[in-house]
Amino acid sequence: MHKLPESAGQEIGRLDFRTSPDGYRHWSISFAGPVARLVMAVDENSPAGSGYELKLNSYDIGVDIELYDAVQRLRFEHPEVRTVIISSGIQGMFCAGANIRMLGTSSHSHKVNFCKFTNETRNSIEDASHHSGQTYVAALNGTAAGGGYELALATEYLMLIDDGNAAVSLPEVPMLAVLPGTGGLTRVVDKRKVRRDLADVFCTLEEGMKGKRAVDWRLVDEIVPRSNFDERVTEKALGLAALSDRPEGEAGITLDRLERSEDENEIRYPFITVSLDHDGRSATLDIEAPDSDAPADVNEIKKQGVNFWPLAVVRAMDDALLHLRFNEPTLGTLIIKTSGDSSRVAAYDALLDANRDDWFVREILLYMQRAYKRLDVTSRTTFAFVEQGSCFVGMLADLLFAVDRSYMLDGQLDDRPAATIQLGELSFGTLRMSNGLTRLETRFLDDAESLDNVHELVGRDLDALESLEAGLITYAPDDMDWQDEIRLLLEERASFSPDALTGMEANLRFAGPETLETKIFGRLSAWQNWIFQRPNAAGSEGALKLYGTGKRAKFDRGRV
Amino acid sequence: MHKLPESAGQEIGRLDFRTSPDGYRHWSISFAGPVARLVMAVDENSPAGSGYELKLNSYDIGVDIELYDAVQRLRFEHPEVRTVIISSGIQGMFCAGANIRMLGTSSHSHKVNFCKFTNETRNSIEDASHHSGQTYVAALNGTAAGGGYELALATEYLMLIDDGNAAVSLPEVPMLAVLPGTGGLTRVVDKRKVRRDLADVFCTLEEGMKGKRAVDWRLVDEIVPRSNFDERVTEKALGLAALSDRPEGEAGITLDRLERSEDENEIRYPFITVSLDHDGRSATLDIEAPDSDAPADVNEIKKQGVNFWPLAVVRAMDDALLHLRFNEPTLGTLIIKTSGDSSRVAAYDALLDANRDDWFVREILLYMQRAYKRLDVTSRTTFAFVEQGSCFVGMLADLLFAVDRSYMLDGQLDDRPAATIQLGELSFGTLRMSNGLTRLETRFLDDAESLDNVHELVGRDLDALESLEAGLITYAPDDMDWQDEIRLLLEERASFSPDALTGMEANLRFAGPETLETKIFGRLSAWQNWIFQRPNAAGSEGALKLYGTGKRAKFDRGRV
Repeated sequence: MHKLPESAGQEIGRLDFRTSPDGYRHWSISFAGPVARLVMAVDENSPAGSGYELKLNSYDIGVDIELYDAVQRLRFEHPEVRTVIISSGIQGMFCAGANIRMLGTSSHSHKVNFCKFTNETRNSIEDASHHSGQTYVAALNGTAAGGGYELALATEYLMLIDDGNAAVSLPEVPMLAVLPGTGGLTRVVDKRKVRRDLADVFCTLEEGMKGKRAVDWRLVDEIVPRSNFDERVTEKALGLAALSDRPEGEAGITLDRLERSEDENEIRYPFITVSLDHDGRSATLDIEAPDSDAPADVNEIKKQGVNFWPLAVVRAMDDALLHLRFNEPTLGTLIIKTSGDSSRVAAYDALLDANRDDWFVREILLYMQRAYKRLDVTSRTTFAFVEQGSCFVGMLADLLFAVDRSYMLDGQLDDRPAATIQLGELSFGTLRMSNGLTRLETRFLDDAESLDNVHELVGRDLDALESLEAGLITYAPDDMDWQDEIRLLLEERASFSPDALTGMEANLRFAGPETLETKIFGRLSAWQNWIFQRPNAAGSEGALKLYGTGKRAKFDRGRV
Repeated sequence: MHKLPESAGQEIGRLDFRTSPDGYRHWSISFAGPVARLVMAVDENSPAGSGYELKLNSYDIGVDIELYDAVQRLRFEHPEVRTVIISSGIQGMFCAGANIRMLGTSSHSHKVNFCKFTNETRNSIEDASHHSGQTYVAALNGTAAGGGYELALATEYLMLIDDGNAAVSLPEVPMLAVLPGTGGLTRVVDKRKVRRDLADVFCTLEEGMKGKRAVDWRLVDEIVPRSNFDERVTEKALGLAALSDRPEGEAGITLDRLERSEDENEIRYPFITVSLDHDGRSATLDIEAPDSDAPADVNEIKKQGVNFWPLAVVRAMDDALLHLRFNEPTLGTLIIKTSGDSSRVAAYDALLDANRDDWFVREILLYMQRAYKRLDVTSRTTFAFVEQGSCFVGMLADLLFAVDRSYMLDGQLDDRPAATIQLGELSFGTLRMSNGLTRLETRFLDDAESLDNVHELVGRDLDALESLEAGLITYAPDDMDWQDEIRLLLEERASFSPDALTGMEANLRFAGPETLETKIFGRLSAWQNWIFQRPNAAGSEGALKLYGTGKRAKFDRGRV
């Protein structure tokens, strides 16, 4: 593996995000009709890194990889599941949050990427509740502290056992001198609409809150006596299940283990090859067009299941992005290319659009949206290169509006026809960014005329100059300039400060309105990054470092 | 002065924000009918700190204090001014931005507070254009780089001289490895709606852009040949002046020098006393009620001018907040108290509300809004204590909803009547936060019923339990508990990490929608804070430190 760039802390090894329930160490899933139960019972002796134990249902990236897998499988493999209960298998403790020893000893880079991934998984839980008819409920059969309460906040209904002990809390500020890392502050005031002064009290109270006051302050929705906790949780779950639009009598689609092979310079998935250029500090994702014609109808799509081209592409892209974030931190530029038969991509794209109301196609499109959002918040420069032989059509054309810049070859470097791109309807409503807009709405912010103009281009092959004219690409160098321009572009980008690029890109990518998600990734994450670095938290006498040693942190008392 | 908390860098001395045009070293103002011209000609030998020269119209806090003063005076002293042209007195250089030597050598704390103040001044320029009928125009008679271009972005119309040399640029990322510090990234994509991929190009281009392309990309509104630059600028200014709703034939209100006296433990203004508790690390602002009855009408208000109680209070509060930010960084908690005759406050409040359409009252209310916003973004814990003898009525009651928590004494510690508060109409539409909502709308987010309930309480004296019941205060300790509770509260707050509190407060204060302002203070500032600390910028081999030395910065190549 490539060494993490910062010397502080032990190393989390190379991560593999592929798992499945039979390999879970920390979670179990059970099913009862329309209700699934996801139970967290963390194996304290199976951390992803070394030097810490996962006591009291605390979690690290390994625990969260399993949760992410479970959330994905529940959507695809279990059309019958309409409510998911998250609960704990440990007496009296729902979840103690992110493991503090792990946070105290891991690199700044790992902390930031760990928080980003856990945030994305919490968002995917809300996505299931809001868009997939699979509503999450938190059955807090013990204390939910810090990240544990933040996990509960990602569900739609929080039930807290009323046993005189179990509480909800965000003790990060008073106990650790950092912020809650998974959207807690934002969800408390913006999702649950806890009054800001009460939120201030709650977020500085180490022991948290329980009982009636927790309900009065909107921190949980209901408290339930131990005697009928399980019964009431099941009742609530069944009540929510009755409101779902999940299908009847459909079989699930099994998410077979994602195929991947790799060597030092390349990672190969079905339909995506990732080339790694460690000297030039870039990675290139080449997405291949389908190798066969589009299936005839939705039944054929389901027969293909996980091998259905759009799903296979999205799965590979999702895995590749996570792999690059955690395992290849020095590859600062991500290049997206495509290759293959454009007409086939167009046919698959039309098929998706025509069947968007089918539950499985809906799941594919929502997954595509999540994977594209993951690209949006990945702290790497993203470029798209549109060359001869490429197939930026429909769902793949939408990637042109996700990247920081796009370059399209105007002319021919060989005998193949000049490159074209083609817009599809998915870019005009289905695929949305976390700001709630489509990528084209963000691109042409408050400019209805340009947006209408490009909408009229749907389905047409657009050459480089037409694409440039319509504002769909950044530059269209001709065949004389292409190679030099691309080379200089990559060299220049690699010469800039990675931190400054990260901050710049995060700010330029999300014009327009803000949502819970953009607040979490834009505002909260930035504050966290800042505080994670401050000596008051991460210094040798900082609270995060000294936690559990019995020593008190020494704070610089200056406000900034 | 109290030492700045971080060892890095030279010290900027104790700052005084009071100035006036006859003391300006860097700016001049001239008037021609409805048009004022604000010309920047920075005296390079008059920096606010030591160890740097303000070459090429670069600025530091001292330059910006004068700009802030000028913007304020133009509003109050010049009702006849309807357009303000910002221009440069230096040949070929509009403004080179914040002084880089100053940034490279000043403490993290000073950098952050400097950026915050400059942001507030840019926002106050937009406030004048949008709400005060005084529209700003940037006459870029030379290059506007970095903070210089950001200053121009705060105006409503950018005219760039077309002389083959003058350009606009944001070279911070490629040149200095930091972000533009005054809202540039946000204003480029969100205000001027520059397409995000073009913004990416622009923000990585050291030399910036000029000529027709600068207009095509929306970076400026117009390019003008040197031969008729002045003429065209005047023409545009007069055109904008014709659209203004500023009054005819009114005399201005002179902003006499703010009276202030101070010793180690106290700062006294007319109507505000600030007590400093360095051991307990808190400051208490006690706002006094008017000492005479409210004037009869708007003519009497204008006769009182700068001594009119609401304006005197707002001026003192504004100065006190700036003083505490820059000169008292270790006083982490700000307590707001009031004292005096409630009925007089109510009478002044009603007078303001009744005359809100008068230009001078409008200016007072807009200034009040800006000063309250300054409190919202001040990185100190803010508490309000409502005690016997207090007068939290109307405009002062609104401060109860600006603070992080409020405590109201339920009962009596002496013979005076028990405390009451009283809401006024200004809290229901006139005084808005930077998220565009009133403080009560933010407090009762998406809860129209509670908001309607409290609206019905306008004008009524509410005791502690009524206030608590209506959700207007956080806690109402009784007379037995009051002193202990307040003491423990202050001790506890002072024990927490200042950084973690800053991040927590910044996130809890701004629930609800986002605006250009909240994006700048919430998202962009946090990213900046982070990057300002990263070794790639601020380390001994970072770009900010090595700028001008001829050495190249060494970057850690890991992305975070």
